[in-house]
Order: sequence, then C-alpha cells, then structure tokens
Amino acid sequence: MNDLNMMDKVVESLTKLRKKVPLVHCITNYVTINDCANILLSFGASPAMCEAYDEVFDFVKLSSALYINVGTLTKEQEEAAVLASISAKQNNIPVVLDPVACGAIPRKLSVINRIFEVGRVDIIKGNIGEIKFLAGEASKVRGVDSLEGSEGALEACITLANKYNCVIAATGKEDFITDGKRSAIIQNGTEMFTKVTGSGCMLGALCGGTAGSSEDKFIAAVTAVLSMNVAGEGAYEEAKFPGSFKVKLMDHIYCLSEEKLKEEGKIIWK
Amino acid sequence: MNDLNMMDKVVESLTKLRKKVPLVHCITNYVTINDCANILLSFGASPAMCEAYDEVFDFVKLSSALYINVGTLTKEQEEAAVLASISAKQNNIPVVLDPVACGAIPRKLSVINRIFEVGRVDIIKGNIGEIKFLAGEASKVRGVDSLEGSEGALEACITLANKYNCVIAATGKEDFITDGKRSAIIQNGTEMFTKVTGSGCMLGALCGGTAGSSEDKFIAAVTAVLSMNVAGEGAYEEAKFPGSFKVKLMDHIYCLSEEKLKEEGKIIWK
Amino acid sequence: MNDLNMMDKVVESLTKLRKKVPLVHCITNYVTINDCANILLSFGASPAMCEAYDEVFDFVKLSSALYINVGTLTKEQEEAAVLASISAKQNNIPVVLDPVACGAIPRKLSVINRIFEVGRVDIIKGNIGEIKFLAGEASKVRGVDSLEGSEGALEACITLANKYNCVIAATGKEDFITDGKRSAIIQNGTEMFTKVTGSGCMLGALCGGTAGSSEDKFIAAVTAVLSMNVAGEGAYEEAKFPGSFKVKLMDHIYCLSEEKLKEEGKIIWK
Repeated sequence: MNDLNMMDKVVESLTKLRKKVPLVHCITNYVTINDCANILLSFGASPAMCEAYDEVFDFVKLSSALYINVGTLTKEQEEAAVLASISAKQNNIPVVLDPVACGAIPRKLSVINRIFEVGRVDIIKGNIGEIKFLAGEASKVRGVDSLEGSEGALEACITLANKYNCVIAATGKEDFITDGKRSAIIQNGTEMFTKVTGSGCMLGALCGGTAGSSEDKFIAAVTAVLSMNVAGEGAYEEAKFPGSFKVKLMDHIYCLSEEKLKEEGKIIWK
Repeated sequence: MNDLNMMDKVVESLTKLRKKVPLVHCITNYVTINDCANILLSFGASPAMCEAYDEVFDFVKLSSALYINVGTLTKEQEEAAVLASISAKQNNIPVVLDPVACGAIPRKLSVINRIFEVGRVDIIKGNIGEIKFLAGEASKVRGVDSLEGSEGALEACITLANKYNCVIAATGKEDFITDGKRSAIIQNGTEMFTKVTGSGCMLGALCGGTAGSSEDKFIAAVTAVLSMNVAGEGAYEEAKFPGSFKVKLMDHIYCLSEEKLKEEGKIIWK
Repeated sequence: MNDLNMMDKVVESLTKLRKKVPLVHCITNYVTINDCANILLSFGASPAMCEAYDEVFDFVKLSSALYINVGTLTKEQEEAAVLASISAKQNNIPVVLDPVACGAIPRKLSVINRIFEVGRVDIIKGNIGEIKFLAGEASKVRGVDSLEGSEGALEACITLANKYNCVIAATGKEDFITDGKRSAIIQNGTEMFTKVTGSGCMLGALCGGTAGSSEDKFIAAVTAVLSMNVAGEGAYEEAKFPGSFKVKLMDHIYCLSEEKLKEEGKIIWK
C-alpha cells in the first residue's frame, strides 16, 4: 500500500465526519453512556442514545450508523440491540459492535451471535483479549480487561475479519485494524486509557461516527482509533492523573485537526 | 410589565431556592442522570433520582417538585413517570416535563399525552423544535437536536401555553418563556451548550428546582433558564472546550450570585 | 488498642489493594455508576458493573468482592442483587452493602432484608441517618441525605454491627466504623462531599475494593473511608467548587500514597 495515500484517506475521513455530522444511534451500557455521548459531540458527530425496544427499529432508519455495546445490557436493551441490528440490515445502516466482556460472560456471546445471525456488523471493536476470544483462541481476560499482549493479535484479527467478513479493530498497547486484506498497526496512545472507565466504549462510539460518514469501513476504523489515540496523547501531555485526563481527552477530541492527525499519526500499514 | 420589578422577582426566586433547598424528584434518562443530580446540588437543590414504579407514587409526596424527562425512558421508567405524575396531581406537587425527542420518536408523544391526561404539568421545557412540534407545527428536528431558528418560536410557545395551561420554556439561540400572558426572551447563553450532552436535561432539572421553591412558575422558569445561561457564559469565559466547559459550568452554577444574575441578565419582557 | 499498630494495618491494607488489584463486582445505581467505576480504577482496583440477573450468579465467582448499592434499583437489578448475594455466600466472596435511602423508601428495606436472609453482608456503609434507621432508631432523613448529627452515632453503629455480625461504616461530619468490638472515628474529610452526587456511592465502591483485598474487614472499611477523606481534603485544597472538586478527587485517589495516608490520617481508635 502507498502509505501516504492511506494517511490522506484517514485525514479525509475525519473531514467527512465533521462535514456530515453523522447521527450515531447508540445502544450501550449505562456505565459510560454519558462519556460516549459527549465524545461523539466533541468529535463532531451527533449522538442519540435510543434503546427502548419499541423505538429502535424505526430510529435506526434515521441514523447514519448504529453502535451496539454489550457491556451490562439489560434484558430490554438486549432485545433492542437485536431488533436494531435487523433494522440496520434491512435499511443498509452500518453497525459497529463492541463485544465487551464476551470472554468472561457467556451470555454476551449469545447476544453477539444473534446479531450476526439476524443483523449486520461492519466493524467489531474490542480489546485484544475479546478479539482473540471471538477468533476462537484461548485468551486471558479478567472482567472487562484484557491481559493479552500483542503476540498473535494481528493474525487473530485477520482470522476474525475473514470469519465475519467485516473490519476488526483490536486495542491494546498497540492497536490492530484489518478488513482481512488491508491492515494497520497504530502505535499512538497512552497507558492512561486503562485508568479511566469507558476508553473502549468511547472508541467504539467514535467508530460509529466514522462508519456513518465514510464508505470505506477499514479507513473509518483507522480514523477513529487514530483520533482517539492522538487526542489521548495530547490530553496526557496536559494531565497526568485520570480525573483531569478524561476532561482533557474531551477537549482534545474537540480540537483535533486534520494536520495534527497527519503529523502525529504513527501507523504501520500492511 | 415593569422590567425592574420582574428582574427582582427572578432574583428573589433564586434566593428562595437556596433557602428552601427543594427536594427535586427526577425521573430522567441515564445518559445525563449524573449531570442532572450534580447541577441540582450545585444550584442549591436536593436531587432524588427515584424511578422504580413501586416507589415513585409515595416518593412524590415527599418532594418539592417532580422532573420528568422522556429521553431514553425504559418501560419501567415510563410506568413510573405516569404514576408519579398522577401522584403529583393528587398531592399538589409541581411537575416539569422535558419532551426530549418528541418530534423524532412517536412513542415519546404517547407518554407525554398520558401524563397530560392523568397527571399534571406546570412547566414544559424543550428545545424550539420540540415545542413547535407539540404546538402542532411542522418542525425541523434530527434525533435529539432542533434545527429550528427563532422565527415563530414565541408564538408557538404562547399557543402551547394556552393549549395546556402551563408555562413553556423553549431553548435555542435565544430562549423563550411564557405562561400565555407574560413572556420573556432571554439573550444570554453560549454555543458551547450544544457541544456537551445534557445541557437541556440539566436545565430541565433546574426548572424543577425553581418550580419547587417558587409559587409563580413563570418566574421559576425564567430563573432557571437565566441561571443556566449566565453560568454558561461564565464557564465559557474560562473554558473554550467541552470537557473543561462542563466542569466549569458546575462550578459557575454553584457560585452564581443574585448580583451576578441581575447584572448579567439580558431579558426582553413582553 | 495500639494506635500506631492500627494505622500500620490501614496503610498495609492500601498496599495490599494496589498489589492485588481486586476485581470489584458492582450492582449499583445509574446516577453514579460511572463515578464508582472511575474511582475504583483510580484507587487501584478493577471495577466490573455486571448486573443482568442471568449473569451475576456466575460472575460473583470471578470477583474479589461484591458491592451492592440499593439506590434506584430497577426490578432487574433487584433480582440481580439478591442472586449475587446468594452466590457471594456460597462462594465466600465478601459483600459491601450500601443501604441508600432505606429510611425514606420502604422497598429498599425489603431488598436489604432479603439480602440478609439469603445472602451475606460483610460491611454496611451508609450515612448516619441510614445506619440509625437500620439500627432501629428514629432518624432524620430527607431523600438520600441524612440530616443527622454525630450524637449517638457510634452507639447505633455498634448495635447494628452486633445485630448483623458485620462491620458498619457510618458517614457524616465525622465517620464511625466498628465491628462491634473495635471502633474508629475518622475526623478527616470535607464538606464538599455533600456538594457532589455520588460521594457515598464512591466510598461504598472503595470499601468493596479494600474488602476484596484485606482479610480484616474492619481495617478494610477504615482504609476505604480514610483514603476517600484524605483524597477529598487534597482535592478541596486545589478546587473549591464542585465540578472541579470531583475531577480533582479522582486525581487525588490515584495519587494517594501510604505515606500521605499515615501522615494526614486523624483517627480516634476505641
């Protein structure tokens, strides 16, 4: 791949998002629902946290993308998530799936499987432990956290991308994104993401934003991950502790420019 | 109207709130429930997020006011909201209704209609798009955001105030408040309110605070809207980005003095 | 008691927590669920907000401690809380119970009673009003806030500790902790805790952290309360207003050192 050309596409994807202001329909856990809404607004998207089972089917039609996060799904949200994914399939709306804790809690997997059976998934965004688990490998998880290193991560992503014919984004010390053919390893980021709750959820929401404004879902996922990481680096420069860091993260996503993304981005394309 | 006299009443309404520390019973969405609780505390009220359907009826009796926000109501919250509004009617407790997304999601309207049928509403606080929709006009909405300008806003508010015999507060670039006879146009505020989630919900909660401590619900609504806007202006002076802005907003609501409200307030009384 | 020795145990309890990184399974209200997760991460624990009734029984087995907070429990959470407490009993997992608003809302008490009947409780962490109420005394509450002073607080704690054979932590202007035999009165803290929502919930979550990493649950409770209070004092030195205070609180919990705990701690041991 022509690396410069790829980075241009990423930058263009951010521009498209700001221009379109995609409406991102989120069905997500209550732990970080506020963070997801705020980071989408700061990024330049329009969040809508619509999850009643008698509302979602129709609301998906109005949306640019659907973000489904299975962390702490209530029964009502579970039904809503499946219904929304059916509507997304029928109405050609891209879906980002966040398989939170799928390796630790069996029920998560059954919800995910139903979404694959009856709905549609364009991007799976998880931590490396979750992605390895979904790819059928034994993986080290604890609660919602992955204890996995990077070894074998890209291979697991490619396996999963081919299994489900979608884009995979796996986060860890490095982040791995692939559509099965094209891959990117992103080396930006900060340890501080592991010290605040919702870093993963917020990233999933951002993927919903770019998926709702870019045709190429691989580029969309790369743009979201890189944006989060570059903003996180900026936030950490100003704030070394988690309370302040989270505040600054929102500020930096808001201020993130195409130039900064291009200058700071450390991506290995494969 | 005597404008100075009106502003004195607004200032007095803030004083009353701080003196009474009204208990505001909130049934609200999970996206911004934390923000609503915090801003009520900062304002000088006492929030209580009570929403189980077997608790609300009795809890309303202990409250100074009830705030119902229909954004992302679960089924259980929907029942609770209707029950609470019945209790409010029976027990003479003022109710503030926030018709979030009523123009985009038909179910919202059916919940709102049930509340009007069996319960009581003293103040409807919505964005201009929602208010126009409830007033029976075609309105431009997208998800939870209004794309409406100010044209015809006051007329729609007056129509709606007379239709439901309550106070209407419609927010936008300018804010419009009316009880059908007296009206106020508030020109304070900041664009930054549109960059953080929950500005509207927080304002609704503040209306619950003032409605719970002031007899005159028109003055109560003006006080809440003006307080939010003046605090927002102060926050924006210190913080130009959304993460920091929200933090400073809480600080400024907490510090808001009667003097500042009077000095900074830009209200056109009609 | 040898006071120096006791303080050494408290300091050691903090060290143990940071070393073990206990997984704290939380079933808690949606108002402050994000704050609870963040403060646990900042403290050095690993939060998991798992609450679906078909997930909790098994998830408790993976956890170091279970934190149950009965504020705004949905029906689904109520079932989950009871099931989780049964699992905790069977699997020997310590449980921290936060009896939010038990004096104001009768249903809370019935949930609490079920947990005592079928499950297990190691620490009850409430405000003085809630503790007095559970101890069978008339108490002055309003919504979720206690209007109680310190008179009779320690006696009520000891009564309750003996009634349920567990550790009691009662918060107020001073904080009282007892296992019925050993008692501690903590004189650190800041009024600002009453100006942000979730101070009590966050403290309860921290008790879950220390209960999950220290055998001695009395010391565990003292460690959590003292850590919160010392961090709060540090936060208040930097931030006099509630929005900023909450941000700094997270920072100070993150930075809290054993030395600081020992130097700043003002504990009367009895």
